Parts: sequence; structure tokens; C-alpha cells
Amino acid sequence: MNNKKITAAIIIIGDEILSGRTIDQNINFTACELIELGIILKEVRVIGDNEKEIITTVNDLRQKYDYIFTSGGIGPTHDDITANSIAKAFNQKLELNLQAQEILFKHYGKENVNAARLKMAYLPKNAKLLNNPISSAPGFNIENVFVMAGIPKIYKAMFESCKSLLNNGEKIFSHEIIINLTESIIALDLTKIQDQYPNISIGSYPFDGGTSLVFRSIDLQKINEAIKKMIDKIYTINPQAIINFK
Amino acid sequence: MNNKKITAAIIIIGDEILSGRTIDQNINFTACELIELGIILKEVRVIGDNEKEIITTVNDLRQKYDYIFTSGGIGPTHDDITANSIAKAFNQKLELNLQAQEILFKHYGKENVNAARLKMAYLPKNAKLLNNPISSAPGFNIENVFVMAGIPKIYKAMFESCKSLLNNGEKIFSHEIIINLTESIIALDLTKIQDQYPNISIGSYPFDGGTSLVFRSIDLQKINEAIKKMIDKIYTINPQAIINFK
Repeated sequence: MNNKKITAAIIIIGDEILSGRTIDQNINFTACELIELGIILKEVRVIGDNEKEIITTVNDLRQKYDYIFTSGGIGPTHDDITANSIAKAFNQKLELNLQAQEILFKHYGKENVNAARLKMAYLPKNAKLLNNPISSAPGFNIENVFVMAGIPKIYKAMFESCKSLLNNGEKIFSHEIIINLTESIIALDLTKIQDQYPNISIGSYPFDGGTSLVFRSIDLQKINEAIKKMIDKIYTINPQAIINFK
Repeated sequence: MNNKKITAAIIIIGDEILSGRTIDQNINFTACELIELGIILKEVRVIGDNEKEIITTVNDLRQKYDYIFTSGGIGPTHDDITANSIAKAFNQKLELNLQAQEILFKHYGKENVNAARLKMAYLPKNAKLLNNPISSAPGFNIENVFVMAGIPKIYKAMFESCKSLLNNGEKIFSHEIIINLTESIIALDLTKIQDQYPNISIGSYPFDGGTSLVFRSIDLQKINEAIKKMIDKIYTINPQAIINFK
């Protein structure tokens, strides 16, 4: 059952996230997209615009997971060092990518492509461009690493064009029981059910006035079995306790 | 000037963030608080409810940075494994903390503290409780690691009670110029100024219709110098380009 598990990590690159100036929007977007693709997001790292950190993080994670998605640092200014750092991580030269240059020429007009803009077209030797219908900033793919812009609108557009390059995993099913009981009331029963169904990931998330119980697995039949047991148990505690099921 | 740099990392622990079910709110809150304290946030990691991952991540980061803040996994259910994992990371036993037990007894009434609730009072041997005025879930501090709840309201309350335990760094000043030019127009001038002021962190953040330039340092005089140079340069390009300065 675990043969087809496909895993991923996200690397958010940007001093502006670490300083609190900018609230990240790409983590949750990517997490939701990956679940739909049956790809398991295992880890996220947020790091600064620092070459050594980027190289170390990319090289660490690209060995561990099937896919790595990076966000940020591919623009024209001095603090945009992602492409260069990724080239170094792969021990490749940064080269003028003619296709990226052509896109910049078309977008800005050739006469308006100054040195700063042209810098964006320098990519690792083996990089393949990602389609970017929104701006002309070149996102790219190299081996299992997808390098995208930090601006959420552009990140989303680039992620869309990654999808055809990804192997999907088995669909991950998810069901949720929402109860008006605090989680400690059902904690021990939930533990028993988790022990019986080790291949289901069961999460318990308290909120003001109740608890959300999330059952997640690629095996829908087992989810349904486990949920039936949990619902039966909740009924014995309080038949009015279930306020939603989805 | 760099003598007093105090650094930190955040570890967000929770399958619910990685699955996309929950949007994290603690990263940005912590980032903003740390800046105010003069503490430099160097890294954030989001990992799942997985003992091995928690141990490895905590042990990796607590060597690298002055302070580690964790969020999530200290509740009463089977998926709340943070306290146990932190104990293992520090090679300590998990023990019933009598002060934490007393707080649970007071909060719920002794007769209502079942095994699941009492589980929350088992903490690493050397843990010191963090004050939690909102719920009775015990957050704790052990050496340079601060272990807090994932629910934002409770996390915030716990973080408040960490503050008196932290050494503050030198105040980090930040000023921002907002211009109606795309960043590639000023990219080369910005690089020159960054090269002249290596101790100022200069960020360039494009948005629809312009660019925000952020200058950040503990040296306010140097920030003012660098900003003056940048503003003079922008005036030569277009005297109407600056739309805000703060």
C-alpha cells in the first residue's frame, strides 16, 4: 500500500517572511494542491536570502523527497539570488537561457531589457523553463526541484505549469467528524482506533466549543470502518455530540 | 557591531499544516514579535507529528540558534507527541510535573482530570512551565527551547510569558521607501548601495504598480545615509516616483 507514496517539501526563500514584513501565502496553497495530486507534503522550510542556506537546504531536501518546490528570489534585484544558488547546489554553471531572454525581449521590448532584467534569464545550465503567463520572470525546473516566484499570483501560475511534470500519487481521502465535545473526552477511544488502523492518519484539532477529528488515508474503506467505530463511540457518550460530518 | 546578534528559529509541528487543513498563523506573529525584541529569526521549519522528525529538528536547530520556539502537539490526544519527543531530544525522562497537574486539577476539577488530560502534565524532567492564562495546557521551557500550543490564541498567550525569559538583542530599525517604478529600473543602483552598506539588509519587493524597498539594520545612522542616497537616485529618475516613505 505504501509503494506509491510520493513525497515533497517546500522551501520558502525570503528575508521578508522571516522579518514578519510579509505573510506567506504559498505554503497553504501548495499543501492543498499537493493533497489533490496525492503527493504527501513532508516538510516546509523558510530560510533567508542567503546563498549558503539555500544551497544546503536544497541539497539536503532534494535527496530526501521526490519533489522540492521553492518560492522567492528569482527577480532582478541584488537580493534575488535563488537561481545562482540553485546552480551551485547542482554544481552547474549559470548560463544565459536564450528562451528566457526571448520571453523578456517580448515582454518588455528588447530596448527595455537592461542588465538587471537580463539577469533573470541566467539560469542553471540544465534548467527547463516553467510557463509563466502572468509576468516574464523565469521560473524553472531542474531535476526534481521546481523554482518559482514568491509573489503568490505568479507562484500559483507557475505551480499550475508544474503539474504536468509531476507524477501523481494515489488519491488521499479525507473525512472529518466535528463534535461539540472537548478532545480529552474522546482521546482514549481515539487512541484505540488509531492503534487499530495504523495506516490511517487521525488528527484531533480542538476549537472553541468542540473538536474536529480528521481521518486521512489512501484506503477509503478503512477510513469508513474507523469512522463508523468512532461515531458509534461518540453516540454512547452523547447522541447530540456530532455537529457536522463531511 | 555583530556581537549582540541573538538568533532564533521556529518549529511548527502539525500534520494539519502540511495537509493544508489549517493555515498557520504563528509564523508571522512570532516573526513580528522577535523583530521588536531585536532577535533575528533565521529559519522556520514545518514538520509533521512524527517523533523522529521532531527529535532531529529540535536537536539540529537548538545547537544553531539562541532560541527555538515550537508550536503544536501538546494536547491530550494520541497525535500530541511533542512533549515526549522533546524529552527524548534532551535525553530526559518524561515525568509527572506536579505544578502542571495542580493547574489541570484547578481548571477542570480534580474528578474531571482523566488519563488523557493528565497526559498533558507529563513533561521533560527539567521543564519549567510557561504561564498560560487561556487554557490549562502546559507549555514549557527547557534550556533554549520554548514549547507552546498550536492554537494561535494560546500560542500568543504563552509567547507573552516567554518574553521575560529572553535576552533581547539590539533594536533592529527598519525603513521603507515605496515607489511607483518596477524594481528592474532601480536594481543596479540598489546593488551599488547594498555593496556600500554591507551591514544593512536591503530588500526589494515588487507589487502591482511599484516596488517596496526595505532597509533594515541596528545602525539607524547608516540606514538614513543609505536611504538618502537611494532617494537622491530615485529623484534623478523621476521626481514623482516616491509614493510613500515610512
